[in-house]
Amino acid sequence: MEPVERVVRHFQEELEQLKRRLLEMGGLAEEHVRLAVKGLVDHDHGLIDRVLTGDEPLNALHIEIDNRSFTLLALYQPMAADLRTIVAALKINTDLERVGDLAVNIAEAARRYASHAPVKKLIDIPRMASIAQAMLRDALDAFVRRDVDLAQQVLNEDDRLDTLKTQIFRELLTYMLQDTSAIEPALDLILVSRHLERIGDHATNIAEDVIFIVSARDVRHHAGEGNS
Amino acid sequence: MEPVERVVRHFQEELEQLKRRLLEMGGLAEEHVRLAVKGLVDHDHGLIDRVLTGDEPLNALHIEIDNRSFTLLALYQPMAADLRTIVAALKINTDLERVGDLAVNIAEAARRYASHAPVKKLIDIPRMASIAQAMLRDALDAFVRRDVDLAQQVLNEDDRLDTLKTQIFRELLTYMLQDTSAIEPALDLILVSRHLERIGDHATNIAEDVIFIVSARDVRHHAGEGNS
Repeated sequence: MEPVERVVRHFQEELEQLKRRLLEMGGLAEEHVRLAVKGLVDHDHGLIDRVLTGDEPLNALHIEIDNRSFTLLALYQPMAADLRTIVAALKINTDLERVGDLAVNIAEAARRYASHAPVKKLIDIPRMASIAQAMLRDALDAFVRRDVDLAQQVLNEDDRLDTLKTQIFRELLTYMLQDTSAIEPALDLILVSRHLERIGDHATNIAEDVIFIVSARDVRHHAGEGNS
Repeated sequence: MEPVERVVRHFQEELEQLKRRLLEMGGLAEEHVRLAVKGLVDHDHGLIDRVLTGDEPLNALHIEIDNRSFTLLALYQPMAADLRTIVAALKINTDLERVGDLAVNIAEAARRYASHAPVKKLIDIPRMASIAQAMLRDALDAFVRRDVDLAQQVLNEDDRLDTLKTQIFRELLTYMLQDTSAIEPALDLILVSRHLERIGDHATNIAEDVIFIVSARDVRHHAGEGNS
């Protein structure tokens, strides 16, 4: 095997490894969101505490992925598609770290919420969480498989989150207006719905990066044009 | 002049140009935050509309800066400090775009708020806005001047934002409990305080990037350790 071939093969192996670590981080971030929302719905302090104290593995992965990306850029000086993929990995890494932070924010709200009488049976919030988690999973799958169609589906899902968020807000506002004792816990539910919306935003960012690296076409700042 | 020197000089010129564009984008994002909060405080629909409809220049700059960064990475394949600077520019660009989005979110809340009777004279929200804007300005100055001390000051400011946010929340909660007609507008003020907190988070991200590129030291996931 020629030296150049060896370098190329080694680079591709490193790139695959980088993608695997990103998937691992995505899986971990998604799991934290799931646990935080389950903790909220079930008033489960054990789950809530796991999320509040468990962000060390995510933080360690975040730093490792950043270092791997920098090393790849510095050692191999990749061009074109590979360059775009590694820069996208750096951005996705930031998005996933924020998703982990948002899971902590949800757990914080869940802890406060559990100290009040429940406002209502939670239906739309778990629904928002499922959509946001699926968006995150699909966006990362789209990144690894370079699947533009799947990335586009993620962009389309964002409208559903937005509709649910508005619906949750209106419903909780009614509860607050009827009963002042519902104000504090309802506020926490509104905040949770905003956190879930932002998790969807991060999935959208990742999907936009996928479309950018595959097609070198910039879809940002045109979001929603295809849905109108 | 030798060809290599010419390339190096050209690269440094391009890098300076990239930094200038980032400063320009930062100035624009900060201005939008200022206008949105002034629109909220003064019930000024003209200012609010300017922010709601005026994000085109920011979006155009965002795409231009991304393209410039990619071109620099692809053409010059920079190493070490220069590589870290350009990757930081890409990240900062994303942060500044989000700040612009948050200015729009503040303007949206301001528009809703202006349709209700005012809850109270707004004092802490403009104070939060001033701090967040100063953090953003200082973080970008620190980036351009590679000033680690200034970046560290930005990190320290974040606690003040957090304290004000908590104070605003408690005060507005009291208003909501006393008077149900205050619930809707007070909710919008709480949301605005969260948006301002997130603008501070973006300034913090930028300051962390500065410390990383200058000292190659990773301060992320240790935030606040120096303040405790």
